[in-house]
Formats: sequence, structure tokens, C-alpha cells
Amino acid sequence: MESRVAQAEQKETGRLEAFSDGVFAIAITLLALNLAIPHLGGNSSNKALGDALSAQWPSYVAFFTSFFTILVMWVNHHRVFRLIERTSAQLMYANGFLLMMTTAVPFSTGLLSEYFRLPGARLAAAVYSGTFVLIALGYQLVWMSLLRNRSLFKRSVPETEIATITKNYRMGVPIYLLATIAAFFSVYASVGICTALWVFWAATSQDCVDFTAR
Amino acid sequence: MESRVAQAEQKETGRLEAFSDGVFAIAITLLALNLAIPHLGGNSSNKALGDALSAQWPSYVAFFTSFFTILVMWVNHHRVFRLIERTSAQLMYANGFLLMMTTAVPFSTGLLSEYFRLPGARLAAAVYSGTFVLIALGYQLVWMSLLRNRSLFKRSVPETEIATITKNYRMGVPIYLLATIAAFFSVYASVGICTALWVFWAATSQDCVDFTAR
Amino acid sequence: MESRVAQAEQKETGRLEAFSDGVFAIAITLLALNLAIPHLGGNSSNKALGDALSAQWPSYVAFFTSFFTILVMWVNHHRVFRLIERTSAQLMYANGFLLMMTTAVPFSTGLLSEYFRLPGARLAAAVYSGTFVLIALGYQLVWMSLLRNRSLFKRSVPETEIATITKNYRMGVPIYLLATIAAFFSVYASVGICTALWVFWAATSQDCVDFTAR
Amino acid sequence: MESRVAQAEQKETGRLEAFSDGVFAIAITLLALNLAIPHLGGNSSNKALGDALSAQWPSYVAFFTSFFTILVMWVNHHRVFRLIERTSAQLMYANGFLLMMTTAVPFSTGLLSEYFRLPGARLAAAVYSGTFVLIALGYQLVWMSLLRNRSLFKRSVPETEIATITKNYRMGVPIYLLATIAAFFSVYASVGICTALWVFWAATSQDCVDFTAR
Repeated sequence: MESRVAQAEQKETGRLEAFSDGVFAIAITLLALNLAIPHLGGNSSNKALGDALSAQWPSYVAFFTSFFTILVMWVNHHRVFRLIERTSAQLMYANGFLLMMTTAVPFSTGLLSEYFRLPGARLAAAVYSGTFVLIALGYQLVWMSLLRNRSLFKRSVPETEIATITKNYRMGVPIYLLATIAAFFSVYASVGICTALWVFWAATSQDCVDFTAR
Repeated sequence: MESRVAQAEQKETGRLEAFSDGVFAIAITLLALNLAIPHLGGNSSNKALGDALSAQWPSYVAFFTSFFTILVMWVNHHRVFRLIERTSAQLMYANGFLLMMTTAVPFSTGLLSEYFRLPGARLAAAVYSGTFVLIALGYQLVWMSLLRNRSLFKRSVPETEIATITKNYRMGVPIYLLATIAAFFSVYASVGICTALWVFWAATSQDCVDFTAR
Repeated sequence: MESRVAQAEQKETGRLEAFSDGVFAIAITLLALNLAIPHLGGNSSNKALGDALSAQWPSYVAFFTSFFTILVMWVNHHRVFRLIERTSAQLMYANGFLLMMTTAVPFSTGLLSEYFRLPGARLAAAVYSGTFVLIALGYQLVWMSLLRNRSLFKRSVPETEIATITKNYRMGVPIYLLATIAAFFSVYASVGICTALWVFWAATSQDCVDFTAR
Repeated sequence: MESRVAQAEQKETGRLEAFSDGVFAIAITLLALNLAIPHLGGNSSNKALGDALSAQWPSYVAFFTSFFTILVMWVNHHRVFRLIERTSAQLMYANGFLLMMTTAVPFSTGLLSEYFRLPGARLAAAVYSGTFVLIALGYQLVWMSLLRNRSLFKRSVPETEIATITKNYRMGVPIYLLATIAAFFSVYASVGICTALWVFWAATSQDCVDFTAR
């Protein structure tokens, strides 16, 4: 009987995980819709097309940064959900907020792509970084809903793992806030901080994967 | 042999559940396509972009409300499918109708976003609420197809759970109808009722999740 | 050891099934992108919006018909994959052709929606029905790849089930061909045949589901 | 206990596989968004619509080639992931790069469709083939991350299988590079090489599927 209950719970977190994965996968794929096909009207020579494609280099940068940021966030999501065996309503809606902000990334990425070389670039970069502030806040809320109800964790989760994640998550909101403020001084600084953050997380997540693989 | 049949049925409802989850996940992610990147032509200063982004605040409200409404509906869908172990053709097509109307939510959300501050706002809000009337009707049809063929339920489902859901579902259609009628008097009242409804459902669904976790 | 091989095969057909389900779910959700938000410029009163929304009734009909046709096709896909425990390269590519044509349904649906009340309606309806001819052909190819390599079927599959499907599938291509030819005489006749077909399949698939549930 | 660890690892690679499948499924479905509905303004007769639809034959060719290329790549992805039971951070990010380039295929396909019969066709074909160079490079990186950490493979994987894949993968980058260079001489040659490659892979993958099915 107990194993049956356990199985039902497995399915419970499983379905939430699968739904979240679906949203991550769709949001990450929709990023590519920001890669615009140039419409050149009269002169559509190889040279004109090449110039038009080169001119939209900011969309490639934004696409790349957003893709890997969402990918790293998905890995992190994964890392948290690997630790739990139950869901709560609070967790469900904190996760919902997190997903909602993730679906907005293609929008903020498109905004940054379009305004990167226009006068409004700084505001666009602030909106771009600001979206990540809210996503980081979503992670914080998800994590807090777990810390406040530890019975959601699997019994086998080591306290050290929980402490590590608590520490890592603390960085997200303030650093993205910094990137948002930086945007009003330099678009490059802002996007640079966002990029540095996913590179850092990608580098550190190695431990996570190693942990799992053991 | 029996366990094999049971497994095949598990897979049966599992695949319907997974398909539904996929549709929910895609529809909820497509909502973000309604967040429009402002095209400012000549004057694309930070100020002009800021004004343009602020001016489209109705899309943010509509995005938020629709996102959480679909999320709550997904949780509810989940709650029902957790109780069953078989599917019927009737259930399949009632569920299909429910999913079809769910995929229309990004359209009705976009309509509301675009017309919120235009003369046609009331009709747009009525279409918006009207979509939810039809989704609520879809849930009602799904639930009725189960009540009429109780062998689809798992044997372990308590009658009290069935009675609770029956009672809760009765509210959906009339309240969304009210929101639809209210739209012709006040857009705010209509959207307010829709918002109140998902907040209410989110609050009550806690019991559901607790039930599962036990 | 044998159970391990069996499990690997389960996973094999399982992944193909999940991939197909994903494509069906995305294609069915993208149909809603054909529901256009009217852009009314100067006069955006409730009346003008109402007229514009009413005027695009063909998109609602096309949306409805395409949604349920894809849904029924998904159920049928399901029905076939429930019978097999292995895949072959031939099956994989026949299934790929089937999926490719399914992803084209939002396009043909949009074409029909846009041209339904224009002079080019008959050609649009022919393209619409023609897409289904090719999908039906895809099903035929999938089924033939199984009939030619019966070791892909589960051993427990009754010959009667195979015979029933063989008989049912024979109808798809000719009836959709008829709908395609009918398009050149009457758009209504063509769309009517397409609608009649999914209603017929939905009605007959009941037996299928009952079979599974037993 | 060991079986529990094994199960957790299964779930680990399983979730990465499911996420990848999701991205493949969405990217392959978004290809159809490049099938444009002709807007004919005044003259929308059957003849005008027929001409407009015929004129966009390059999009059908590009759609077909891209669809089957992604399908074959998905089968190949499948083939590799069938061999492993653990993930590493390196594998995760190599796979991420591979997926990112896959989501760009609808863009490069749209570019090729639009420029196929315009002066800029050669550059468009070079971008199209170039996308596949990068995808092939992604596969190479995924495979190298496995060869460098053989403990990720299942113990039962035969060395011959690894050797075969190593050999097959070596071809991808140079042949797509050839197609990219060929684009500057002939669009047909470039697209022809891309098509030949998926046909070749589809034909050879038969062995793969046979291997699995045994």
C-alpha cells in the first residue's frame, strides 16, 4: 500500500516536472522566432542580404544569451525538483510565476534585439535584465516554499545540498538587479553581467550533475 | 495477466494526460506572443519606448490573468485525471472540446489586450469571458462523462472527493457567464470576476494537493 | 535478460510515440494562430468589432473541423501504436511523412479561412482536403510498413483487430480524394465531407477505446 | 539500494532526453510557419491563388528537406542517448548547443524559401547549409563529451557500436561544409547535398533500428 502512495506522489511531482519542462522547451524554441528574415524589396543581392544579416548581430547575441540562460535555468529547475517528492499549492504557484516569467523571455529578447542599436537600447536592456530579476525571484519563491515545508523533500536529501542551493539562490536576484541598474549606464555591461551569470552557473552546475551521477 | 491489463490502461490514460499537458503547456506559452514589441519608427528614445511599453499595460494584465487561469485549469485537469484509470470515447471528445477552447485563450487574450482601451473593449471582454464559459462547459462535460460511467474511476476514489468536485464544477459556467454579462457594463468588473475566480480556485486547490500528498 | 530487452523496446516505441504526440499537440495548438485579431483602425466600436469577428466565421468553422480531425487522427495514431512493440526504419519514415503533413494542417486551415469567401475558395478547399489525402496516405504507409513486418506487432494482438484497421484505413485516401474533387464544385460539400469523416471516425473509435479498456 | 540509484540516473538521462525531444518536436513543427498564405488583394481567383501557391514551391522543397533532416537528426539523437545512462555538465551544454542550432533551422529554412529565386539565393543557401554545419558540430561535441568520459555509457554498449557512430559522425561537418561552399556556385548543388545527406542517413539508420529491435 505504501509503495502505491509513493508511486502516486512520484507521478504527482512527475507531472508538474513534465509540465514545467514543456514550458521551458517551448519558450526556449520560441526564442528563434526573433531571428528575422530580412525583407529587402528591390535590391536583394548576396551583398545586400549579407549586410542585412550582419546588421542584426544583436539578435544573434541576444538569442545565444537567452538560450543558454533558459537552459541553465532548466538545469537548475531540474536540480531542485530532483530533491522533492511532494508538491504543495504554494510550490505550484511559485513555480507558475517562475514559468510565466520564463515565457516572457522571448519577448524581452526580441525587445533587446530590436532596440540594441537604437536610442532606446538602455531601457530595452533594463527590461531584459528585469525579466531575469523576476525569474530569479520566482526561483527564490519556489525554494522558500520548500524550506518552509521540509516534508516535501525526499528524506535522503543531504542538508549540505540544501544549504548549497540556499546560498547559490541568494545571488540571483541581487546580481540581476545590478544588471538592470547597469543597463541605464551601459547596455554592454548589462548584457555582459547576464552572460557572466549563466556561464558561472553552467560552470558550477557541474558539481550538481556529478552529485546526481554518483 | 491482470496487472498487464492494468498497466495498459495506465498507459492509456497516461497518454491522454500527457497529450493534454502538452496542449496546456503550449497554449500557456503562446500567451506571451501577445506581448508586442513596440515599433517606434523615427523617435525610439528611452522615453518613447518607456511610454509605449507602459501604454500596453492591459496586455500585461491580460497575460497575467490568462496565465494563471490556464495554470489553475491545468491543476484542476490534473485533479480529475488523477481519479480515473480508464478513458471512454465520450471522455476523449469532451476533453478535446476543453482543449480546443484552451488553445483559443491566447486569441481571446490578444483581443482583450488590443481593445482594452478602445471603444470595442466591452465586446472584447465578453469574448474573453465567453471563452472561459466554454472551457468551464468543457470541464462540466468531462466530469459528466465520468459520472455517467463510474467504472472509469479508480476503485479507491472516495465518494466525498467526487461530491466535492461535482459541487465545485457547478460554479464554473454560471460565474463565467456572469463575467460575460458584466462585460457589457464594465470591462473591469468582467476581468475582475475572471481574476477572482482563479484566485479562489488557487486558494481552494490547496486541499486538493494536500489530499494527494497524503 | 529478456525483460530488459522488452523494456528497451518499450522505451523505443515509447519515445517515437511521445515525439509524435508532441508534434500532434503542437500542430493542434498552432491552429488557433489562424484566429485573427481584427485591426479596425479608426472605428473600433463594439459594433464594428462584432461585425469583424462575425465576418471571420469561416475561420471558426475551419478551426473546429481541423482541431477535431487532428484529434481523431491522434486517437487513431494511438490505436495503431498500442499494437506494436518495435519500430523499423520504414515505420519511422512513414510516420515522419504523416507528421510532416499534420504540421501543414495549420497552413491549409489558414488558407481555407482566408479564402473561404473569396473567389479562390474552391482551390483553397482543394488544398485543405488535399492535405488530408496526404495524411491519410501517411497512415496507409505506416500501416503497410507494419503489415509487411508483422514481428513489430505485440504477440497478443488479435488478427481481427488488424483486419478491422486494415478495412477502416482503406477508406481514408479515397474519401478525402472525393472531398478534394468535390471542392472544385462546392466548398461546402468539400468541407462537409471532411467534417463527416471525423464525426464518423469519432463515433467508430468508441469500439477502439472499449477494446482497450477491457 | 543500487537499483534506486540506477533508477534516479535513468530519470536523469530521461529528463534530458524528454527535453531534447520537446525541442526537436517544436522546431520541426514550427517549420510549417514558413508556408505562407498568399495575400492577393484585388484578384483572388482560383487561378491567381494557384499561381501564387505554385510560385512558392521553394518553400515546399525547403520545408520537406528541413523536416526530414530534423527527423533524421532526432533519430540519431535517440541513437546516442540510447547508449548512455548518465549525463555530465559537458554533455548537457554540448547538447544545448546542438538544440540551439536546431531551433534556428526554421529561420534558415524561411530564409532559403524567401531568397531561393532572388539574387541573394546563394548566400541564403550558404546560411542554410551553414546551420547544419553547426548542428553537425554539436553532434560531434556531444559525442566527444561521451568518448572523453566513457563511464557515461551503459556497460552493455558494444565497442563496435561506438566505433560505427564515431565513424559516421566524422562525415557530418565536412560534408555540410562542402554544401556551404557549394552554395556559392549553385543553390541546387547545395540543397542537393543536404538532401542527399538525410536520405543517406535515413537509409543507414535502418541498421541502428535493427540493432535496437534485436
